[in-house]
Amino acid sequence: MDKQAAKDKFIGEFDALVDELKQILHHYKMPQEAVDWFTKNLYYNAPGGKLNRGLSVIDTYCILKNVKIEELSDAEYKKVAILGWAIELLQAYFLVADDMMDQSKTRRGQPCWYLKPGVGNIAINDSFMLEGAIYVLLKKHFRQDPYYVDLLDLFHEVTFQTELGQLLDLVTADEEHVDLDKFSLQKHSFIVIFKTAYYSFYLPVALAMFMSGVSSQKDLEQVKNVLIPLGEYFQIQDDYLDCFGTPEQIGKIGTDIKDNKCSWVVNQALLKVNAEQRKLLDENYGKKDDESEARVKKLFHDLDIPKIYNEYEEDVVSRLRAQIENIDESRGLKKEVLTSFLNKVYKRSK
Amino acid sequence: MDKQAAKDKFIGEFDALVDELKQILHHYKMPQEAVDWFTKNLYYNAPGGKLNRGLSVIDTYCILKNVKIEELSDAEYKKVAILGWAIELLQAYFLVADDMMDQSKTRRGQPCWYLKPGVGNIAINDSFMLEGAIYVLLKKHFRQDPYYVDLLDLFHEVTFQTELGQLLDLVTADEEHVDLDKFSLQKHSFIVIFKTAYYSFYLPVALAMFMSGVSSQKDLEQVKNVLIPLGEYFQIQDDYLDCFGTPEQIGKIGTDIKDNKCSWVVNQALLKVNAEQRKLLDENYGKKDDESEARVKKLFHDLDIPKIYNEYEEDVVSRLRAQIENIDESRGLKKEVLTSFLNKVYKRSK
Repeated sequence: MDKQAAKDKFIGEFDALVDELKQILHHYKMPQEAVDWFTKNLYYNAPGGKLNRGLSVIDTYCILKNVKIEELSDAEYKKVAILGWAIELLQAYFLVADDMMDQSKTRRGQPCWYLKPGVGNIAINDSFMLEGAIYVLLKKHFRQDPYYVDLLDLFHEVTFQTELGQLLDLVTADEEHVDLDKFSLQKHSFIVIFKTAYYSFYLPVALAMFMSGVSSQKDLEQVKNVLIPLGEYFQIQDDYLDCFGTPEQIGKIGTDIKDNKCSWVVNQALLKVNAEQRKLLDENYGKKDDESEARVKKLFHDLDIPKIYNEYEEDVVSRLRAQIENIDESRGLKKEVLTSFLNKVYKRSK
Repeated sequence: MDKQAAKDKFIGEFDALVDELKQILHHYKMPQEAVDWFTKNLYYNAPGGKLNRGLSVIDTYCILKNVKIEELSDAEYKKVAILGWAIELLQAYFLVADDMMDQSKTRRGQPCWYLKPGVGNIAINDSFMLEGAIYVLLKKHFRQDPYYVDLLDLFHEVTFQTELGQLLDLVTADEEHVDLDKFSLQKHSFIVIFKTAYYSFYLPVALAMFMSGVSSQKDLEQVKNVLIPLGEYFQIQDDYLDCFGTPEQIGKIGTDIKDNKCSWVVNQALLKVNAEQRKLLDENYGKKDDESEARVKKLFHDLDIPKIYNEYEEDVVSRLRAQIENIDESRGLKKEVLTSFLNKVYKRSK
């Protein structure tokens, strides 16, 4: 099955899940207007992205089971797809809230949910309900499985980790009070690992491992030890492309410099600046005008950040390849789970 | 142990729980500023209320085990207190978010968390982390217990129910567009049962039942069948006192009429108004001025709402007493669990 067909098949499961959630609300005798609201919330916020995280669960499961997607029974496919949609719901929960906290305007090419007429701060409760939907679905479909409690622990742990990353990001990148002394590579690393790597890289693989039964503590540790630095690399690449990628490459115009983001790029620059360059950075980073941004970008070029990035990338990728090479496959884990992730990230341009 | 001593003992457990949570953040190597922020969030939002819900877990547990608080070992007390604090954390999670959604100004006699300087919309993520703390603590202290998964399911279910109640409340009581046609006693009943009764009445008892081992499906059903209508009665009483209680009685000035709340009082009035009175209600309910509020209050008196309330109260209390009388205690459940709740609610004035 090609990539588009796999994505279409995954999207094809979503209606049935929304129906199941609606059934539960009807069972509670919830008035129709609130059922309709929840339905809109689900459709507006859960699909519509690239769905990479959800699709990764299915891909990983198939690798571990050594089958093709089309060889899965309908019931088995549905079950693994529910784990995929559970991550997408988790992501929707974060994004609805993040957009409010960042005062973003658009998400996935449409207005942010909280900006839709009549929504506003109700979006806070809507984000809660997107998270709540995860546990409704897990209970309905996995309550009888021996790994049910592991799924719950995993979702709880990763959710909390993501919230910790978001907290550090929020208290570090205060748009009102720009202070580059608050930044550091250590903080950047914590933020990207906690805010992104756990739920985007480790979670999909760990979910597929539980469902396939390849889920010893040792194997979970093995994949975590690769996927967390891989997720960090992914985010560093994202930071790099925000500044140095073309709009065509990345599908948007980067705004990290204007937004005072604690990005990998500015942290690398801070390590290399002399006093004069630091002054330029202090005076121009986080400012909303194009001239300030252009001055910062020129400084980044003068400091050879692209060269540092390329060296970092080659270094991290060779380290990850060596780590994957050493994976112990004796309990059923497959190196291919990890190489398929690495190959999606390495040298991507969007 | 008297009530105040029991409360002091319960509060005395909180510092240690915060320390445990901080330990976990330190273990993650989270930068100190974010640890400090989370600590402030916990202390500002979790204690400080009446703690009735948390204390109910302990009271119920002692009744079921037929012991006094002072007879519990330190370890057993701590464990049941953690379940109590888990409800208080759940409540804190809801209240931090509700205050933002309602644009409230104060909570428990201090400014709402989101209004504290420097907090603002970060409070959304802070509310998430209050919820996250529940599962960190449950995992640490209950992971080995056979009822661990039941605790998780229960918290998930009740959390989702509360969010459903909040959703219906939000879509029904739109302060911008006053429309009394949106109100009904059915909706009122759904809102108060889902938004309040499940987490405030059923949850504390069910948690204590799981820990004490008196937790068959039948017994959980028995207590739910009493505690849900009891919680509804509690909230109806709250609505009634908001309008007809004195500020000295209720410790605040009621604002339901000005806030266009879908209160039991206005729903009873809507059942009895003639065309002229309905017009008065349409023109004055939800208006922010004192004169409109006074006109509405006079109408409520003219419609004999206090008499209807007293009849309702006597009726529901005698029904609940009869239901409790019929409780099957053969598996270890005690009627006293329910009468102690009922006696706290009946004829209370605050």
